[in-house]
Amino acid sequence: MSLTFYYSPHSSASPVHWTLNELGIPYEKVLIDIKAGDNKKPEFLKLNPNGKVPLIVHDGVAIFESAAIQIYLGETFGVEKGLYPPPGPQRVAAMMWIIWCNASLGEAMSRFGRNLGPWAPEDQRNAKAGEAAKVEILGLLQVLEDALKGRSYLCGDQITIADLHLASWFDYVRMMQIDLTPYPAITAWGSRCTSRPAYANSP
Amino acid sequence: MSLTFYYSPHSSASPVHWTLNELGIPYEKVLIDIKAGDNKKPEFLKLNPNGKVPLIVHDGVAIFESAAIQIYLGETFGVEKGLYPPPGPQRVAAMMWIIWCNASLGEAMSRFGRNLGPWAPEDQRNAKAGEAAKVEILGLLQVLEDALKGRSYLCGDQITIADLHLASWFDYVRMMQIDLTPYPAITAWGSRCTSRPAYANSP
Repeated sequence: MSLTFYYSPHSSASPVHWTLNELGIPYEKVLIDIKAGDNKKPEFLKLNPNGKVPLIVHDGVAIFESAAIQIYLGETFGVEKGLYPPPGPQRVAAMMWIIWCNASLGEAMSRFGRNLGPWAPEDQRNAKAGEAAKVEILGLLQVLEDALKGRSYLCGDQITIADLHLASWFDYVRMMQIDLTPYPAITAWGSRCTSRPAYANSP
Repeated sequence: MSLTFYYSPHSSASPVHWTLNELGIPYEKVLIDIKAGDNKKPEFLKLNPNGKVPLIVHDGVAIFESAAIQIYLGETFGVEKGLYPPPGPQRVAAMMWIIWCNASLGEAMSRFGRNLGPWAPEDQRNAKAGEAAKVEILGLLQVLEDALKGRSYLCGDQITIADLHLASWFDYVRMMQIDLTPYPAITAWGSRCTSRPAYANSP
């Protein structure tokens, strides 16, 4: 078995980094220096034509998109390790929340960051669009808050890759200065997840 | 087995609609009238707190996020029907492209539509951001074009739910007046997919 992980610290590769460390499977790390343009070099583009991290190559198969990588690692290694539910209805929550994070929350976060934060040039921003995005983000956080009420993790009592994925993403939510005080279930769940040693070893 | 599909025509429910019809499994349709606010009614929010279509409820389990629904339908019914690859490396492309569509292409399309199209109020738009999003969309289309060169479908010779998902999404790309002439592989693949009778029956 060979597994290579292409990453940049404190990026959307971080949730995958954490998952790999929790799974405890052997893998090789390749640091992609975004500032130096490593992600636009031909040898990297051959593996991920999108020019982005994260990317994994497992036994010669290249996989991009962090949500796809997480679901693949879950299916391939996670069920056996107790970090991903087996196929069927018990898998729904894990897959759904990973995708909700990247598609719904991710889109609103991007809109917020590009219009009110440093994610786009100043002449491409619109403060009103940023404020509207923030209102949507707060609504999405309430959806997650309600889902976490009365349970320890997204799928119930057992932590899964979905928790690692979203809890890592919340580093961005906090970085964007979104106040999580009104969301006690998210806050408690986030602390439960990030208190694990593998989190600290997965920048 | 019970499967209920909550949808609105010509929305992100359309790819799921198409998948359900291709799978040929029995399901009940519930039309959600967005203009009438059906999606914000308490009985709908109980099933999908995000207040969006598509939503499916399979044997009592509610699933939201179109990409999650497609992957779930693929795992649950698609493998047997030859419309989704079995687990393992052969499944990677299907899952990856479905998520790429909703996360990467979806985010850029949203940015384009909100800044240059009718997807956001006028005072929330920024034409330069829209132009930058269009450049990104063209880059993403080139990634897909290159992936489709020399193959009939995203996973090879066999059509899968990933093709249905992306080909249905391309109705939006065309609606947003993005010229597909420079992408002959996408154009040929799109025609191959949408010439299937189930496409026409899945608004």
